[in-house]
Amino acid sequence: MVALVLEKAHELSLRDIDLPTTLGPHDVRIAIHTVGICGSDVHYYEHGAIGPFVVRAPMVLGHEASGTVVECGSEVTHLKEGDRVCMEPGIPDPNSKASRLGIYNLDPAVRFWATPPVHGCLTPYVVHPAAFTFKLPDNVSFAEGAMVEPLAVGIHAATKARIKPGDLAVVMGAGPIGMVTALAALAGGCSQVVMTDVVQEKLELARALGPIVPVNVAQQSVTEVVQQLSDGWGADIVFEASGNARSAASVFEPLCPAGRVVFIGMPGAPVPLDIVAAQAKEASIETVFRYAHVYPRALALLGSGKIDVKPLITDTFAFQESIEAFKYATHMKPTSVKVQIVLPA
Amino acid sequence: MVALVLEKAHELSLRDIDLPTTLGPHDVRIAIHTVGICGSDVHYYEHGAIGPFVVRAPMVLGHEASGTVVECGSEVTHLKEGDRVCMEPGIPDPNSKASRLGIYNLDPAVRFWATPPVHGCLTPYVVHPAAFTFKLPDNVSFAEGAMVEPLAVGIHAATKARIKPGDLAVVMGAGPIGMVTALAALAGGCSQVVMTDVVQEKLELARALGPIVPVNVAQQSVTEVVQQLSDGWGADIVFEASGNARSAASVFEPLCPAGRVVFIGMPGAPVPLDIVAAQAKEASIETVFRYAHVYPRALALLGSGKIDVKPLITDTFAFQESIEAFKYATHMKPTSVKVQIVLPA
Amino acid sequence: MVALVLEKAHELSLRDIDLPTTLGPHDVRIAIHTVGICGSDVHYYEHGAIGPFVVRAPMVLGHEASGTVVECGSEVTHLKEGDRVCMEPGIPDPNSKASRLGIYNLDPAVRFWATPPVHGCLTPYVVHPAAFTFKLPDNVSFAEGAMVEPLAVGIHAATKARIKPGDLAVVMGAGPIGMVTALAALAGGCSQVVMTDVVQEKLELARALGPIVPVNVAQQSVTEVVQQLSDGWGADIVFEASGNARSAASVFEPLCPAGRVVFIGMPGAPVPLDIVAAQAKEASIETVFRYAHVYPRALALLGSGKIDVKPLITDTFAFQESIEAFKYATHMKPTSVKVQIVLPA
Amino acid sequence: MVALVLEKAHELSLRDIDLPTTLGPHDVRIAIHTVGICGSDVHYYEHGAIGPFVVRAPMVLGHEASGTVVECGSEVTHLKEGDRVCMEPGIPDPNSKASRLGIYNLDPAVRFWATPPVHGCLTPYVVHPAAFTFKLPDNVSFAEGAMVEPLAVGIHAATKARIKPGDLAVVMGAGPIGMVTALAALAGGCSQVVMTDVVQEKLELARALGPIVPVNVAQQSVTEVVQQLSDGWGADIVFEASGNARSAASVFEPLCPAGRVVFIGMPGAPVPLDIVAAQAKEASIETVFRYAHVYPRALALLGSGKIDVKPLITDTFAFQESIEAFKYATHMKPTSVKVQIVLPA
Repeated sequence: MVALVLEKAHELSLRDIDLPTTLGPHDVRIAIHTVGICGSDVHYYEHGAIGPFVVRAPMVLGHEASGTVVECGSEVTHLKEGDRVCMEPGIPDPNSKASRLGIYNLDPAVRFWATPPVHGCLTPYVVHPAAFTFKLPDNVSFAEGAMVEPLAVGIHAATKARIKPGDLAVVMGAGPIGMVTALAALAGGCSQVVMTDVVQEKLELARALGPIVPVNVAQQSVTEVVQQLSDGWGADIVFEASGNARSAASVFEPLCPAGRVVFIGMPGAPVPLDIVAAQAKEASIETVFRYAHVYPRALALLGSGKIDVKPLITDTFAFQESIEAFKYATHMKPTSVKVQIVLPA
Repeated sequence: MVALVLEKAHELSLRDIDLPTTLGPHDVRIAIHTVGICGSDVHYYEHGAIGPFVVRAPMVLGHEASGTVVECGSEVTHLKEGDRVCMEPGIPDPNSKASRLGIYNLDPAVRFWATPPVHGCLTPYVVHPAAFTFKLPDNVSFAEGAMVEPLAVGIHAATKARIKPGDLAVVMGAGPIGMVTALAALAGGCSQVVMTDVVQEKLELARALGPIVPVNVAQQSVTEVVQQLSDGWGADIVFEASGNARSAASVFEPLCPAGRVVFIGMPGAPVPLDIVAAQAKEASIETVFRYAHVYPRALALLGSGKIDVKPLITDTFAFQESIEAFKYATHMKPTSVKVQIVLPA
Repeated sequence: MVALVLEKAHELSLRDIDLPTTLGPHDVRIAIHTVGICGSDVHYYEHGAIGPFVVRAPMVLGHEASGTVVECGSEVTHLKEGDRVCMEPGIPDPNSKASRLGIYNLDPAVRFWATPPVHGCLTPYVVHPAAFTFKLPDNVSFAEGAMVEPLAVGIHAATKARIKPGDLAVVMGAGPIGMVTALAALAGGCSQVVMTDVVQEKLELARALGPIVPVNVAQQSVTEVVQQLSDGWGADIVFEASGNARSAASVFEPLCPAGRVVFIGMPGAPVPLDIVAAQAKEASIETVFRYAHVYPRALALLGSGKIDVKPLITDTFAFQESIEAFKYATHMKPTSVKVQIVLPA
Repeated sequence: MVALVLEKAHELSLRDIDLPTTLGPHDVRIAIHTVGICGSDVHYYEHGAIGPFVVRAPMVLGHEASGTVVECGSEVTHLKEGDRVCMEPGIPDPNSKASRLGIYNLDPAVRFWATPPVHGCLTPYVVHPAAFTFKLPDNVSFAEGAMVEPLAVGIHAATKARIKPGDLAVVMGAGPIGMVTALAALAGGCSQVVMTDVVQEKLELARALGPIVPVNVAQQSVTEVVQQLSDGWGADIVFEASGNARSAASVFEPLCPAGRVVFIGMPGAPVPLDIVAAQAKEASIETVFRYAHVYPRALALLGSGKIDVKPLITDTFAFQESIEAFKYATHMKPTSVKVQIVLPA
């Protein structure tokens, strides 16, 4: 089967590769329609590794996908041929303790698309467990369906934040994950989001997404903006979505007493955190890793119109232009957010 | 001072009455602008009592109010003359255990406007603790400000529901409290609300407020509608806002496994609940009584545009027509939701 | 294989019966050592049914069991031959939504020992999924191991109660489940438990288990006792473990403001609950159904000595006396709590 | 009135000083019986400051106290002359937002005994708000009553940890706060506590307090011990009570997936935390600052015997030996935990 294969760092091919095609009784076969390019795909392309995950053999890229069911295993009941779907890319061991506890994203045995040595889904057909395949509402397009994966990260973060209706949130970082986190925070109960970055174009894009106050931290203090918006009380929640060490070290500054920090971005090195400053506010901190059983929530919010991801889909390439798409994704315009690849019907 | 006085059941006067006017160091004096009529005001008017609270002496009605600060006590720092404000009507004992625990709404010593023997605020000027007086955002009108009190009930219920982003909720009962609960549930993270009543006009009004699916339970099964919307899983949350015994007894039917019920409506007698049916789903149940420190959240949601209560303000009377307003409020058209009284400047 | 078979209501045989013996790769084969008799076993014996679960064909009884691993499936890693173990009797569908959410006890597809049409474990050998089989600590006997199943119910209830250290709890009902709930509440953070019943012998037994204040509700008001112990504030938590309708209807009386009720007992009919009384205290209510991933917690608490169930094991019979054991269990002395059956080595 | 006065760093006097004696209507006058010496008292003595809190004028030391009510204000109802009591040393502004929210410990306006410029209680008589004065159970001695303040820190930490019954906890640091945290964790639901330090004498003392596994981290890896105790899963909760930077940086190592860290100790500088390691486990982190409404819980646990602090009271001095007591407290034997001062009757 033809697929976009990362041969090694910096080397992509669109070529045939041997992929599993056996359909188990609990599986579905899916014709892939759209695949988004994630920062992790780009990172493997540029560096051949992310932390301990090293690309040691050619690997198909892609894990943000939507498509159409073309065949169902014998035990599958909730899906049928022709269903438009999106797929959760990480499959845990159902017998693990983490699975039993409902925190299957933390199972060390998870097999996740395009995380070495597991192949991704930038290929016309995949076989996937039906239990991790979700029907798209009629009013959700394939392009939006392929946004469910990154959106799920934002919704998981918003869920972990235990937002109370009317909370004021800060989202640090206006990249794709910052954007979906802001959308999720607003859909999840925040009255307003203060969003930070140093790229003005990204902040302008954010401003158009809802009651979002952009703050260019090269020019303005986020803590001052928050103090003003909250009568000096502080932000109820601070989402760190930049992965930037300086941002990560500053999370307690705009925070209110008993506020909550959520670390989504992944800083490259340990971050010096001022524990005593956190204690003076009894800050609580959540850290998130991917998501667990968030897809149905994401689809419900897209389907009811509470979240609109369409403004984030800025660039689309055809499957045969996949290599070009990756080259673009490594050097995007500041107004680009999400690059997607569409497969032939 | 002139005020709308409930002399006894069925007898209202607009007349002078002796009211406290001393301004303590932590108090503000407020010129009342708008006062909404609550179901409890109407109930005292018609029956002279609500449960153990009996009107034994003439009592000023009204507790849903907005106005303008005209004088500040010597220790007041966060408000100044001219500030447009709304007021929390219940003042607890600051030394009580409930106050210390942050659940001051449950303090048996609370003094609450227009709950015998405490006078309400349907009068041109009131003195109120500054700590329970909240500045209106510039874009929130006095009419909306007087809606903060009932809205706070809905937001408190939505907060207690611990909504996760994307939850599906049922709101039973499309009266004023059902309406604000639906708005709060949507603003608080629900993807969609299924709203029940038997009055079609109210359901049509609800339908216009957002992603709300109206169900006339005289004609349709709410459980069937919910099953269809949720692929047979059930509603994550059921808010009972009707106070109707039959509704209250049916809350577990549309609920999903591990779902949550919130009882807001106050049924007149004990309700037979099927504990075993609840256990089969491990239903959890919250009960709510007024609200605690919800006003800032309500104002944040009104100010950012996440909640719009204007469609609920259906009828307005002048202060000198107060008695007429109450007569209307006892026999409202089905398309009326909230009746308000505006005081002369 | 020989087993204790319930032929139909009132008719037990100790006879050969065909039982599954195939060992899957994720299964273990266990030589059963001890099996406790549960109220549900007795109920099937006496009535042939519990609610919708009807004994329509001969069924092996028993689900509270411990034993020794005698054979391991090829994929089993955490257990080995000779391990002393206890077993979770309910096996969910790993592909269900409930399993994914970590609430597998609520999966409608659960297959549970000795719940028709699933056979129980009163037989010398069983095959069981390794993931639901737990190694006993060295200092936990087989008799204690067979107590883990009922203890898990109490620990699950105590977990759902979200006890804060120092809480005062009421446990209504001093039967086996009330007893394990009291032990779990004390181990789980309560400072003290007030335990109610009308059988004085059971209350005396309870008194010996820890800081437990027994209240014979035929003679004394539990609310008065609680008021006195709590300076008039009320109990933080009320566990209803009797299943008695009158007890269940009274749960809000001894409760403190913002307190929590946990319904464990299963009343035979809907219970009239005073919603308004609950609201005045903003009572929250949890309902429990069996347990999910509680066994490791139960074993940790038995192993460290924080919980001692030995005083609850009051009567032991040999396997060949099983029918006699059941006859005794239907008419126990008031000082009996748990009857167990021991299989030949 | 005579009092132990810290004139400035290193200089203590037992001398007369002017202290407030006016009894307000909500106050009680208390004859102090016992006062414990806290690490913060010693720190002010040695350094004249803790962070931003600088001793600029002579200040009475001491805030861990018990005594006897000798006079009640006119509005006091829950206490009477002769009551044996202990006192919460921090008094918030009842009108603050933090007080309203039930998080009064985070009110920046808190006045706290022996925190400059507020005098402490090492003096024969103090006036204190009755709402922050708590009656000792009959079986709790004055010495134990003076332990309620540090114990409250541990119980607050254990409460914030949201322990589930049977959790395994690590407590880093076997100083007085580590000790009370371990006691609170065990009373609050943990099955077992692994306690770390480098002073073997302290670890031996800890071992005697309950199911506590001492680990001398100079010789042994706490992560290895935890892995062994938990079948490789990790500790559910890690309490950092040492304030040591290296300990604080290592909290995620022994932690289980979805585990919780509680920072109690106050490191002198920002601590480099490995956010990515925390995310891989979705660690959640709580930080604590003193306590709020914990005294009644502490007294309930002491009164019922669930917590015994007597082994921690290792050294007692008379009031006239107060200066000597402080000198001893700065150079305690490794087997000393808590030094107390007893006032003349």
